[in-house]
Amino acid sequence: MNTIGKILALTTFGESHGSAMGGILDGMPAGVAVDLDELQRFVDRRRTGQSAGSSTRDERDRVEVLSGIWQGKTLGTPIGFVVRNTDARSTDYDEIARCYRPNHADFTWDAKYGLRDPRGGGRASARETVARVVAGGIAVQALQRLGITISASVDAQSCVTPPADGDTLGGIIECTVKGVPAGLGEPVFGKLHAQLAAAMMSIPSVHGFEYGDGFDMAGKRGSEVMDLFVKRPDGSIGTSTNHSGGIQGGISNGEDIVMRIAFKPVPTLMQPVPTLYREGNPVVLHPRGRHDACVLPRALPIVESMAAIVILDNYLIRKTNVL
Amino acid sequence: MNTIGKILALTTFGESHGSAMGGILDGMPAGVAVDLDELQRFVDRRRTGQSAGSSTRDERDRVEVLSGIWQGKTLGTPIGFVVRNTDARSTDYDEIARCYRPNHADFTWDAKYGLRDPRGGGRASARETVARVVAGGIAVQALQRLGITISASVDAQSCVTPPADGDTLGGIIECTVKGVPAGLGEPVFGKLHAQLAAAMMSIPSVHGFEYGDGFDMAGKRGSEVMDLFVKRPDGSIGTSTNHSGGIQGGISNGEDIVMRIAFKPVPTLMQPVPTLYREGNPVVLHPRGRHDACVLPRALPIVESMAAIVILDNYLIRKTNVL
Amino acid sequence: MNTIGKILALTTFGESHGSAMGGILDGMPAGVAVDLDELQRFVDRRRTGQSAGSSTRDERDRVEVLSGIWQGKTLGTPIGFVVRNTDARSTDYDEIARCYRPNHADFTWDAKYGLRDPRGGGRASARETVARVVAGGIAVQALQRLGITISASVDAQSCVTPPADGDTLGGIIECTVKGVPAGLGEPVFGKLHAQLAAAMMSIPSVHGFEYGDGFDMAGKRGSEVMDLFVKRPDGSIGTSTNHSGGIQGGISNGEDIVMRIAFKPVPTLMQPVPTLYREGNPVVLHPRGRHDACVLPRALPIVESMAAIVILDNYLIRKTNVL
Amino acid sequence: MNTIGKILALTTFGESHGSAMGGILDGMPAGVAVDLDELQRFVDRRRTGQSAGSSTRDERDRVEVLSGIWQGKTLGTPIGFVVRNTDARSTDYDEIARCYRPNHADFTWDAKYGLRDPRGGGRASARETVARVVAGGIAVQALQRLGITISASVDAQSCVTPPADGDTLGGIIECTVKGVPAGLGEPVFGKLHAQLAAAMMSIPSVHGFEYGDGFDMAGKRGSEVMDLFVKRPDGSIGTSTNHSGGIQGGISNGEDIVMRIAFKPVPTLMQPVPTLYREGNPVVLHPRGRHDACVLPRALPIVESMAAIVILDNYLIRKTNVL
Repeated sequence: MNTIGKILALTTFGESHGSAMGGILDGMPAGVAVDLDELQRFVDRRRTGQSAGSSTRDERDRVEVLSGIWQGKTLGTPIGFVVRNTDARSTDYDEIARCYRPNHADFTWDAKYGLRDPRGGGRASARETVARVVAGGIAVQALQRLGITISASVDAQSCVTPPADGDTLGGIIECTVKGVPAGLGEPVFGKLHAQLAAAMMSIPSVHGFEYGDGFDMAGKRGSEVMDLFVKRPDGSIGTSTNHSGGIQGGISNGEDIVMRIAFKPVPTLMQPVPTLYREGNPVVLHPRGRHDACVLPRALPIVESMAAIVILDNYLIRKTNVL
Repeated sequence: MNTIGKILALTTFGESHGSAMGGILDGMPAGVAVDLDELQRFVDRRRTGQSAGSSTRDERDRVEVLSGIWQGKTLGTPIGFVVRNTDARSTDYDEIARCYRPNHADFTWDAKYGLRDPRGGGRASARETVARVVAGGIAVQALQRLGITISASVDAQSCVTPPADGDTLGGIIECTVKGVPAGLGEPVFGKLHAQLAAAMMSIPSVHGFEYGDGFDMAGKRGSEVMDLFVKRPDGSIGTSTNHSGGIQGGISNGEDIVMRIAFKPVPTLMQPVPTLYREGNPVVLHPRGRHDACVLPRALPIVESMAAIVILDNYLIRKTNVL
Repeated sequence: MNTIGKILALTTFGESHGSAMGGILDGMPAGVAVDLDELQRFVDRRRTGQSAGSSTRDERDRVEVLSGIWQGKTLGTPIGFVVRNTDARSTDYDEIARCYRPNHADFTWDAKYGLRDPRGGGRASARETVARVVAGGIAVQALQRLGITISASVDAQSCVTPPADGDTLGGIIECTVKGVPAGLGEPVFGKLHAQLAAAMMSIPSVHGFEYGDGFDMAGKRGSEVMDLFVKRPDGSIGTSTNHSGGIQGGISNGEDIVMRIAFKPVPTLMQPVPTLYREGNPVVLHPRGRHDACVLPRALPIVESMAAIVILDNYLIRKTNVL
Repeated sequence: MNTIGKILALTTFGESHGSAMGGILDGMPAGVAVDLDELQRFVDRRRTGQSAGSSTRDERDRVEVLSGIWQGKTLGTPIGFVVRNTDARSTDYDEIARCYRPNHADFTWDAKYGLRDPRGGGRASARETVARVVAGGIAVQALQRLGITISASVDAQSCVTPPADGDTLGGIIECTVKGVPAGLGEPVFGKLHAQLAAAMMSIPSVHGFEYGDGFDMAGKRGSEVMDLFVKRPDGSIGTSTNHSGGIQGGISNGEDIVMRIAFKPVPTLMQPVPTLYREGNPVVLHPRGRHDACVLPRALPIVESMAAIVILDNYLIRKTNVL
């Protein structure tokens, strides 16, 4: 339920205003050098206060690795880690416990579990993603040793106009993975892009995923999107264009893997919002917490982390394709 | 690898021109009435020859259920089934074995496995999906007994212009699931829309997935896409709009689940196509097989099947949320 | 539920008197030569009529491989297969549908599923194991190519005295795996012997499992069971004794893997047996079917199959231990 | 790899002399009352210093629950927890890093991973089990609310004679689970006893598992071990004897589940032991750490924990057997 990956498997835990967020990254190969300072810097990219539109809460996300790495190298054992929750002002959330915020998960969690931790959104908070970034940062370092690099960026037209009157913005993140060898991905249900889609769609607020030419493909003729094969100077075979986004038949073809992820606007407005109490009576909600107006800059390392976990997992699985 | 689902798990097998396609649907609850004639009609919707742009191969996909259903009811045991491959003209594919068709999986399968069955595309053929439709048709019947219905349709602007000169078309399929109770889906990695995305992206030729307002969300303000809560006449709580597409925080909220799936144009053109032999030498390929110009009408039951499998699986998992 | 294995995963289906038994062996590496005649001979070892105490039903278990093997080699795709059920005399089982046979699964299946297929015991029949042997036979051939061999034998004191008056016997099977390299197995929950135990205990009628000195270990001093290390002529490190049964800390150490599996006596006596109808009224059951008095000779290829599947799966997983 | 369970899934981490042991218990139903003081007392049963033959290291295993429980109840979210490692004297283990202790996992871990954390045995230490007991203690409390109780005890003939000269003892633990409703367990690969066997065999030092009459079954006639059905005063159906140990056909039948687990003697002797350096040169090892002479009393809560996790997982899975 709270696990992603088959051989490289990340399981996470944590409520926004509980003691700590954390996780276990299992299946990391042994003997991989991990630089913990570099890992901390990767996680810091996700922090608040990094850009104009983001929340002022100082989360101080100090990563504490509890196992699985010794003398700078992975042991092959599960990597347990925690990030303590600090500076959480739970008193802000007293009223939220009694009503349902629109476009949040309050109502659906009650429907599913019958109860919820309302403090800071509990586990439905995007704070949950800090554990993904810790694990992702480790996977990123392992991939670098294989010559595989991942880079996400905010689409040029996203998050540019500052929202007025406490309103919020959505946007699109583009992510490119370079250096992936041909042959990764499982060709039926586990297509590489299907796994990437699931990983990206699991990030809070994501409403759409496409790879290669994506939705534009739907309006094109077959002859317009044909990636013709070419022989490279080194004798290898590649394609002259990349409409396919680096994946054909669910398996990587050695070209750059390119994908785009659509985020809905932040659901918490700094405006009065009409809604209902749990019992169905109306109420106007005056949000008082600290929230981002546009989450996309903070989401970049999250997107890169999810990509890294999927790619590394498939890199390992591919080793089992031959005896 | 060839399995999808956690409690309700479908595993499939089969190469396009091998003996048979088939699968095992495990985890179906016991005592569910299954009408095998209705199932055959559901599978027939996927057959060739159903619309103007589709292939003339008569696949005669007769479903043979081998286990798990007795006296018209499920036993709780795995449902094994096969669909024989008939009328396959493997001689058409001799040259294909030696070269890589653009936008197909020939190159990537070779890269992954070192060998492949070239006859009819082997397991990379969309014929693979017949097993999904058999299992999906069973899941659809079970969901109907729960008041949950699924309906997919081709977007109005897709596949309308007939392609000329052997070219092909892509398009968009919309799928709506009605009657899903609130509370389905796992809120972190197993978000309901993440599972649906993975399922849909695993269908051959799919390049994009969105739910609710999807990619349009990216250009909107938070105030524009707010689904305000309303109290229904029966006392239940719903939303007045459905920008969220029936899922909030990864969990169904009781509204219609709405999603859109983008298909690339069929990769096999009825035109000469320049490409390379496995060794890198150039060749012009003159396709002689039988192929669809637009697959969307045939893909409708496939989309419905994947939705049914995901929804029913999550319906079952939800039963474990309370002691 | 009906699946075993992580990378190499076998899923089976089939009721004793349904159309067919079968399964899907997924995750087999590509390019492995499989001799189908040799496979049929392996499966034939499990047939009835092979020894004095066994049933006279001629099962004619002809293996039909439907996918995944082409031109004598595995494709890396799932291997689907069926074995048709023939010569089943379902009329023998009319009364059994209404009552619970002692030491059978009739009562517990009703308790779990609310209904069952009573013909020949349905899926609770040991006929289910034919699918294991098909998959196991393929795994055995792959292991042979790696120099790993598996051999099971009936313990010298088992099944020797012929049972009188329609009574039945249990016994012990010993199984040895030679040539397993050091390093297979997952050291915590997935200990190699834990996986082997689960696999063997899943065979019908098995009531106990031990490896190495097993239960005898419980009465020994530490100094008595110490496997001291020795340097082999080729420079490698081995042990001078093998109390540990080839596994230490859950991981293979390169010595022979040795285990013993205890089978209960066949539960179907050829004697009148008092029992209850489903409603609780008493009845004396006069069995008329065809059953073995001692199943151990037929169980040998089943034990070897389960061992082969576990060992090969762990062989593949081990490849992922390094980057 | 480091996960056990399907719906209720425990993943653990931690090296003996690393920062902490810990785990994530995922899939616990929501709204279950958990008494953390009672949980601490359960974990304390596993501590050292509890009986004459046990180690003098004061482990002070204080359980810190980090998520998933709020206001005394489970949230349905993953329960993250840690137990800090204190009082570890890593200097004791300098020589161990360079050689292979007999009957330990030093050699096999090197063979598998190419490196290991030698301090206190790293993750191969039985200290790993503290995480199992934390999770198990929570499962035990949930089962109690369902009327299911688990009790393990040391076999009367085990661990009674105090070992002389630094030698060690093995023994047998018996475990009984009362109150399990009929219908739990998956009848083919996931037989309830197969799952219990895997869980118990995953405990360090375990070499054998049996349930019901176990290995004794092998020497009996079918007529001797027949559990005849009887109608209880309340109208329900039970059995007059329990040779089957509460499980028939892999599914619980409502009788007590009874099993026996064989432990090998503690492998660390307080005697000089001849062995080899990693390079193959001989050395005599003089152990200086702190170790138990007989682990069985400390293993009781571990056995109960593994039983609790398996039983509760299957209790939840059974809910999915009907629509």
